[in-house]
Amino acid sequence: MRLLLIHSDNIEYKAQKKTPVAEENIIKEDEMQEALTAFCAVEKMDEDDIAGVSSKTAADILETAKQLGVTNIMIYPYAHLSSDLSSPAKAVEALSKIEDECRINGEFTVKRAPFGWYKSFTLSCKGHPLSELSRTITPGEEGKTEKKTVEH
Amino acid sequence: MRLLLIHSDNIEYKAQKKTPVAEENIIKEDEMQEALTAFCAVEKMDEDDIAGVSSKTAADILETAKQLGVTNIMIYPYAHLSSDLSSPAKAVEALSKIEDECRINGEFTVKRAPFGWYKSFTLSCKGHPLSELSRTITPGEEGKTEKKTVEH
Ligand SMILES: [Mg+2]
Repeated sequence: MRLLLIHSDNIEYKAQKKTPVAEENIIKEDEMQEALTAFCAVEKMDEDDIAGVSSKTAADILETAKQLGVTNIMIYPYAHLSSDLSSPAKAVEALSKIEDECRINGEFTVKRAPFGWYKSFTLSCKGHPLSELSRTITPGEEGKTEKKTVEH
Repeated sequence: MRLLLIHSDNIEYKAQKKTPVAEENIIKEDEMQEALTAFCAVEKMDEDDIAGVSSKTAADILETAKQLGVTNIMIYPYAHLSSDLSSPAKAVEALSKIEDECRINGEFTVKRAPFGWYKSFTLSCKGHPLSELSRTITPGEEGKTEKKTVEH
């Protein structure tokens, strides 16, 4: 799982057109202010343990949200973060689990942009040192996560 | 070289704070409308042939700009696209070469966001099928480029 977390003044999207792997029953457009935007790319290796990787990802998103003091989370599928993607079905399974686990304790408002659609979007990044963080989360080995905070 | 090309209604940035590898003599804030935003991560392997990789990258940016019919190009360093980055000095060398080569024939207005600064930014992506493209460009082997147009 490749994860890019952006502390955002604003994130909004509008689904414009289906790709061949579009999920159905989506929220076509939405927005959040003062949010943590979590761009996610589910990778082939994650298929070995979708539940575990999704849990670690959700835990990382929630930990970051708490550190930043934000209560709004936008989960946003972003294939361009990886060159070795999972199947679309596994990606939707993972994204849905992440969404559910972020929402589970009721402390956060959680939205999820649809998978498999061409989307227009507008994103504002705050620009402080912790406003852009990336992570690589791998299956197995309890909690192994490569974190990167450097911003060039 | 990892490259993420976004056909943007708008891209604007403001340098907020230096990192330890900040370049000097920068344009602290700028913006463009109707632009191709080229997020670039210069990778360790690119150090073998900075000139060659930079030329291939510039050629790819220009080809995409022509296809999209845009004349504005914003080159934007984006470390989070790779987990195996070049040295900061080589990154600035590559980004400067890309900037120069994109500008060379006078057909395009080219700007470059500074390397090594925490930056706030706002980006709008148009959302049509060719509005988000990613590339991996490697040194050697004449013109070898892995292209990805899928958008999830
Ligand atoms: Mg416009």
